[in-house]
Amino acid sequence: MSDDERAIRSAIQEWMDASKAGDTGSVLRLMADDVLFMVPGREPFGKEAFSTASQGLEDMLMEGRADIREVTVLGDWAWTRVHLAVTITPPNGRSIQRQGYTMSIWRKQPSGWVIYRDANLLTTE
Amino acid sequence: MSDDERAIRSAIQEWMDASKAGDTGSVLRLMADDVLFMVPGREPFGKEAFSTASQGLEDMLMEGRADIREVTVLGDWAWTRVHLAVTITPPNGRSIQRQGYTMSIWRKQPSGWVIYRDANLLTTE
Repeated sequence: MSDDERAIRSAIQEWMDASKAGDTGSVLRLMADDVLFMVPGREPFGKEAFSTASQGLEDMLMEGRADIREVTVLGDWAWTRVHLAVTITPPNGRSIQRQGYTMSIWRKQPSGWVIYRDANLLTTE
Repeated sequence: MSDDERAIRSAIQEWMDASKAGDTGSVLRLMADDVLFMVPGREPFGKEAFSTASQGLEDMLMEGRADIREVTVLGDWAWTRVHLAVTITPPNGRSIQRQGYTMSIWRKQPSGWVIYRDANLLTTE
């Protein structure tokens, strides 16, 4: 496994750990400033909208598992395909389980690998 | 615009035209043998499942518009982001409109550029 592939795998785990810890700042550092997230049924959104949505989730408990299916490094670019299984529990509320695949485009920046484009196909069970 | 970017744009248009014409053979030639398609709510599927599903759509009228938002060529690889708006009309039936984004990974083969991975985020309106 190349150092770049290892770094991307580590960034995905860091993303999961930071999300679980509610550490939005660390998650935001793992994405490019001009990142675009795509989910079904709405227009793509960027870093600011991601940050705002994360603040709305601060009281939630998040548990998740990322199963990395493919990592392909192409110089300073890469793409990944990951299966995610996530459980979100609101305070005193009922857990929501979401799972499915993400496909992401990554770029290598001086600070490390960051997500540049992300297609999120997760559905609620 | 590079020759490769032009070829990928042309392949996307060819895909739309062949789909509209019900020409599944031409669509299948625009994907790698080991292609994987991802849609919300089911496991990724390959060329054979795509072909079977297309045969089930043979009696449908398909009209569609592909608005290519991004094409990035990385040697023999590329990725694209496209907004699709599709209308499907069954015989004597009511039209279904679907729209949304796709993000695709492409590979350059001796025969030309083919889709290797595709995340399809379209929703029914």
